[in-house]
Amino acid sequence: MTDLVLAGERVDDLQRGGLVILQDPKGYCFSMDAVLLSGFAEARAGEAVLDLGTGSGVLPLLLSAKTQASSFTGLEIDPETADRARRSAAMNGLEEKIRIVCGDIREAERLLGAGRYQVVVSNPPYREAGSGKVSENPKIALAKHEIACTLADVVHAAARCLSSGGRFYMVHRARRTADVTAALRREGLGLRRMRFVHPTADRPAELVLVCAERGAAENAVIEAPLIISLATGEYTEEINEWYGDR
Amino acid sequence: MTDLVLAGERVDDLQRGGLVILQDPKGYCFSMDAVLLSGFAEARAGEAVLDLGTGSGVLPLLLSAKTQASSFTGLEIDPETADRARRSAAMNGLEEKIRIVCGDIREAERLLGAGRYQVVVSNPPYREAGSGKVSENPKIALAKHEIACTLADVVHAAARCLSSGGRFYMVHRARRTADVTAALRREGLGLRRMRFVHPTADRPAELVLVCAERGAAENAVIEAPLIISLATGEYTEEINEWYGDR
Repeated sequence: MTDLVLAGERVDDLQRGGLVILQDPKGYCFSMDAVLLSGFAEARAGEAVLDLGTGSGVLPLLLSAKTQASSFTGLEIDPETADRARRSAAMNGLEEKIRIVCGDIREAERLLGAGRYQVVVSNPPYREAGSGKVSENPKIALAKHEIACTLADVVHAAARCLSSGGRFYMVHRARRTADVTAALRREGLGLRRMRFVHPTADRPAELVLVCAERGAAENAVIEAPLIISLATGEYTEEINEWYGDR
Repeated sequence: MTDLVLAGERVDDLQRGGLVILQDPKGYCFSMDAVLLSGFAEARAGEAVLDLGTGSGVLPLLLSAKTQASSFTGLEIDPETADRARRSAAMNGLEEKIRIVCGDIREAERLLGAGRYQVVVSNPPYREAGSGKVSENPKIALAKHEIACTLADVVHAAARCLSSGGRFYMVHRARRTADVTAALRREGLGLRRMRFVHPTADRPAELVLVCAERGAAENAVIEAPLIISLATGEYTEEINEWYGDR
C-alpha cells in the first residue's frame, strides 16, 4: 500500500469507514465544502456518478462510502493531481469502482460521452478570473479561480453528461446564487433543491448547495438552512453527522 | 374619525405607535408578509417611497412609523381598496404624508413619473395565473394571483420609477427565487441582499425578501435566515421585535 505514496504526500484518514486519501500539503487540499456536498448529494443503487473537477478524488471516495452507486468517474485536468486521485482510490481498494480521467471539463462530453451519467457532482472553482488574490501556486489557483473553466462551462458539461432525468449537485459561493440559477436555466437543468450554508445561525451564508434535474420543470425547495457551528463554537449535530464517524 | 369607517369595515390596531388600519374582513386582509417586508426594508430621512400594489396601505403605514422617509405613495388598482387605504391614512392623520393613487402597476411610470423614488417596495401577488386554486372573491384573487400584473411587470415598474441608485425591496415566494433574480437582472437592478424566511429553523423557506439597487453591480449577501417560530411554537425574538409594540 505504501508504494502508492510519493515523497511529500500525506495520507489523511477520511474518518469514514476507514477510507484514506492522499494529499499534497503544498498544493490544494480539499475543504469542508466537499464534505458538505457529499452530505447533500444523493445517488441510488446502480447509478453512475461523475465528478467534474475531482481534484484529490475526495467526492468519489466519500460518495462511495455513503451510497450504493455502481461507479464513480472523476474528471481532473491536472495530470499530477489525477494520478494522486487514482492512487488514493487504489489505496482504498476502489480502483474498480472509481475511475479517474485526466482531461478538461470543457471536453467532458467528448471524453466521457453524452448522457451517460445519472448523477453529476461538482465543487468547482468559485472565484471569477481576475477577482480577489490569485494564489501563486498554480494548482491552488486552478482549484479556486475560474482559470481552466467557468461556472457556465461546468454547468454545460453537467447538462451534456447527464442522462435525461439525471441530477446535478453542486456547491458554490452563496454570493453567486443568481449566476448559478441563471446557468442552470440556460442549460435546461430544473432547480429542485437549494440549501444555504451559514457559519452560524446569525451570519450570512457562505455557500449554496444546489440540486437540479435535467429536463425537469424548475420547482425549487429552499431547504432549511445548514448551520455549521453553534454560538459556542462547536459543530452542530447535523455537521457532526455529515463528518462521518470521527 | 368614525365617519371614515364604512359599513362592514373593521378597524385594526397595527400595534405600532398607535397606528390603525381599515380592512374589509370579507376581502383580502394583509398578512405577516407585509410586516416582514416592512422590517426588512430601509428608508432614510427625506427619501420618497413608493409601494407598488399597496392594498390596504399597510406598508406605507408601517414604514411611516419605522422610518424618517418624507413621503409615501401607494399605487393600488382596485378603486374601493384604494379609497379604503386613503381613509386609513386619514384616520392616522397621515393624509399629508401618504398619498394613495388608484392605477395599474403596468402604467406606473406614466402615472407617477420616471425615476422619482429613492425606495420602491412591493408585496405583489405570488402565484402564477392558472396555478393553484384561484379565490372566487375577485379582490382576494387579484392580491394572490398574477391576474392584473406579473412578477416581471412589478420589477419593470420598480426599475422605471426608481431614481439611479434607488433601492427596491420585495417579498415573494421562496420557490420563485430564480424567477425573482432573473427579473431583477433583466431590469438592471443589482441584487444586494436576500433573506429567506423559514417557519421554523428545520423547515424549508416559504418566503424570500430581496433588496436590489438600480444600476448597481450584483453583489448579493444571503443574510442569516429569518426564522418565524421556535420549536415550542412561540415567535422568535426577532419576529416579536418586527411585530412592534404588541
